[in-house]
Amino acid sequence: MTMEAFGEENFGDEPRWQAPLERQQGWLTEEELAETRGRVPILYVEALPVRVDHAGRLTEVGLLLRGSPLTGAITRSLVSGRVLHGERVRDALMRHLEKDLGPTAFPVLPTAIVPAAVAEYFPWPGERLSDPRQHAVALAYVVPVTGECQPRQDALEITWLAPEEAAAAEVAADLEGGRSALLRQLLHHAAAL
Amino acid sequence: MTMEAFGEENFGDEPRWQAPLERQQGWLTEEELAETRGRVPILYVEALPVRVDHAGRLTEVGLLLRGSPLTGAITRSLVSGRVLHGERVRDALMRHLEKDLGPTAFPVLPTAIVPAAVAEYFPWPGERLSDPRQHAVALAYVVPVTGECQPRQDALEITWLAPEEAAAAEVAADLEGGRSALLRQLLHHAAAL
Amino acid sequence: MTMEAFGEENFGDEPRWQAPLERQQGWLTEEELAETRGRVPILYVEALPVRVDHAGRLTEVGLLLRGSPLTGAITRSLVSGRVLHGERVRDALMRHLEKDLGPTAFPVLPTAIVPAAVAEYFPWPGERLSDPRQHAVALAYVVPVTGECQPRQDALEITWLAPEEAAAAEVAADLEGGRSALLRQLLHHAAAL
Amino acid sequence: MTMEAFGEENFGDEPRWQAPLERQQGWLTEEELAETRGRVPILYVEALPVRVDHAGRLTEVGLLLRGSPLTGAITRSLVSGRVLHGERVRDALMRHLEKDLGPTAFPVLPTAIVPAAVAEYFPWPGERLSDPRQHAVALAYVVPVTGECQPRQDALEITWLAPEEAAAAEVAADLEGGRSALLRQLLHHAAAL
Repeated sequence: MTMEAFGEENFGDEPRWQAPLERQQGWLTEEELAETRGRVPILYVEALPVRVDHAGRLTEVGLLLRGSPLTGAITRSLVSGRVLHGERVRDALMRHLEKDLGPTAFPVLPTAIVPAAVAEYFPWPGERLSDPRQHAVALAYVVPVTGECQPRQDALEITWLAPEEAAAAEVAADLEGGRSALLRQLLHHAAAL
Repeated sequence: MTMEAFGEENFGDEPRWQAPLERQQGWLTEEELAETRGRVPILYVEALPVRVDHAGRLTEVGLLLRGSPLTGAITRSLVSGRVLHGERVRDALMRHLEKDLGPTAFPVLPTAIVPAAVAEYFPWPGERLSDPRQHAVALAYVVPVTGECQPRQDALEITWLAPEEAAAAEVAADLEGGRSALLRQLLHHAAAL
Repeated sequence: MTMEAFGEENFGDEPRWQAPLERQQGWLTEEELAETRGRVPILYVEALPVRVDHAGRLTEVGLLLRGSPLTGAITRSLVSGRVLHGERVRDALMRHLEKDLGPTAFPVLPTAIVPAAVAEYFPWPGERLSDPRQHAVALAYVVPVTGECQPRQDALEITWLAPEEAAAAEVAADLEGGRSALLRQLLHHAAAL
Repeated sequence: MTMEAFGEENFGDEPRWQAPLERQQGWLTEEELAETRGRVPILYVEALPVRVDHAGRLTEVGLLLRGSPLTGAITRSLVSGRVLHGERVRDALMRHLEKDLGPTAFPVLPTAIVPAAVAEYFPWPGERLSDPRQHAVALAYVVPVTGECQPRQDALEITWLAPEEAAAAEVAADLEGGRSALLRQLLHHAAAL
């Protein structure tokens, strides 16, 4: 990770925050992360990549196929990741979109960071959304992409589906942690169902 | 206007209308419009055109300079216009953006048509927003434009201002009908003030 | 209808708008309404009445049972009605809630009039939402009621259902004009599905 | 804190926790909290308490007068506090409202937890919002209260102001960390300015 992840904004005439770069940008050791996950809810961003027509109408939904960080099984997922210490929500969202979709996806972020949905994941069973690793709270967005997506890192590929296909039960079953409810919530937000 | 104008054959897989808009849709004579304005609130869309950086942060705000339809004086305004009978909100928004900003502005509409603000204009004095012609209810959006704007029709030019400049009192005073309140509301929605 | 429908706000020191009361408040003859419906989209408000727990979590959804204004058949519906000329959106919403749920329902309106959903009804087949009478655009809200509901006028009764029951296919089929999609959209907005 | 604290037996049909909050949840020692604040953004909720008329129109805004946790000086503030590990956003919001406003304030939470604003506080100078202690991300809401407010704990009193008074420069100057921008954003969200 480089400084660019923090976007173009800089900190004006103010002296830069004085800690080492790693600590500034919130990278944690495995041990630190595990410890922190037991103490506070962890802030995430999530994005549903979509294709839109010229008037912004949602035409297709992109779901990632990837190995689960939890089980290793192949599952479908949204773009998702942590907001680092010192990182803006908007920059975290852009960083994870670029990381998961590649440098030529050209995502178009919303003008307001008020999310389309707030998703609460709990580390115990019986909740609408769950994540065995942690209590996570995700700000979730619907993000049009205008370029070509080339999934990177642990994402194997991206599949484009019509909204009603993406919401169908057999696809929903492939989403981890109850995210089928979140996916439908985001599609309803865009009035696409 | 009758149902025949909306024959089902126009609404196959492609929901775009093929015939000239004027004949298909709700263009009204001056007399019909005046009469209708006395009967029901008239539905409008309004848009604040903005420039954003690569992460979607609002950097500049576009205000139109135009002759007031009410007084003829030169005033600043947002992109604004009626939703016609049979027209989708999203299509009305795109139509007015193209009409006011020209064909190369490339506006990027939001994925949800839930507006950033609902603006209520009343035809009498003493209201937050007013319009001597009518009771109008406008769905208002913040819309990034990525291309070049060439104001057309009655818009003389577009001025790009930093958000805090656009919100300043001397600019606000040039906006008709109390729209300075709406402008600030839209800028706050984007957390740009 | 009395002046109270316009709420507590008055028009300050300004002279009241000068037309006859009926015209001020936008009541139209059948003929005028039919004519107007052919000219412009008609602005509506819709509300899904809900029961919430002490922390605002949606626990039950209220659906009205009424005779369809279109077919006379018994159907389920949301609270719904026109915004009159000169009437604020917020006052129209309260007026229709009181009309449909009775004077002791005590609805709690949201602090912002930005709706949970914008619903577009078209008078031809093949749309997500349809209304044979007109092109209508409804601002739709989720509204907690804290008192006792006594349906009035044409509403026969109100049925309280768990969110997942209300969203089920057999209930959805009883909603007119495709409103099952709107109902699910509103339930997803409240993260209740 | 370990998973055992969240034994499944507590989360049957009733999602309310039975044990004292302190033992169940993420209360941290001073040292743990300081360490955690250097590692990840800390999730907060903030609320602007308001009085509304019968149709939900904002009439008055409540600002707390309290000793600053940072400087000890008397400052104005919103209701504000951390979301604890394992705690729902909605429950955290209610807990802080009750803590700051007393047991008889009767706050009415929104039906959706999507906030009116997302507020990002950074621990260095030069930002729109800042907090020397930490990088905090707050989900901010406008919350009507219908009962009597009796500020508790460190809040000395609550002052009720008309929206335009609350937004005025001299009041704004008494709000810590740049929250005058957040206050105005929330007032604009409610169309109260």
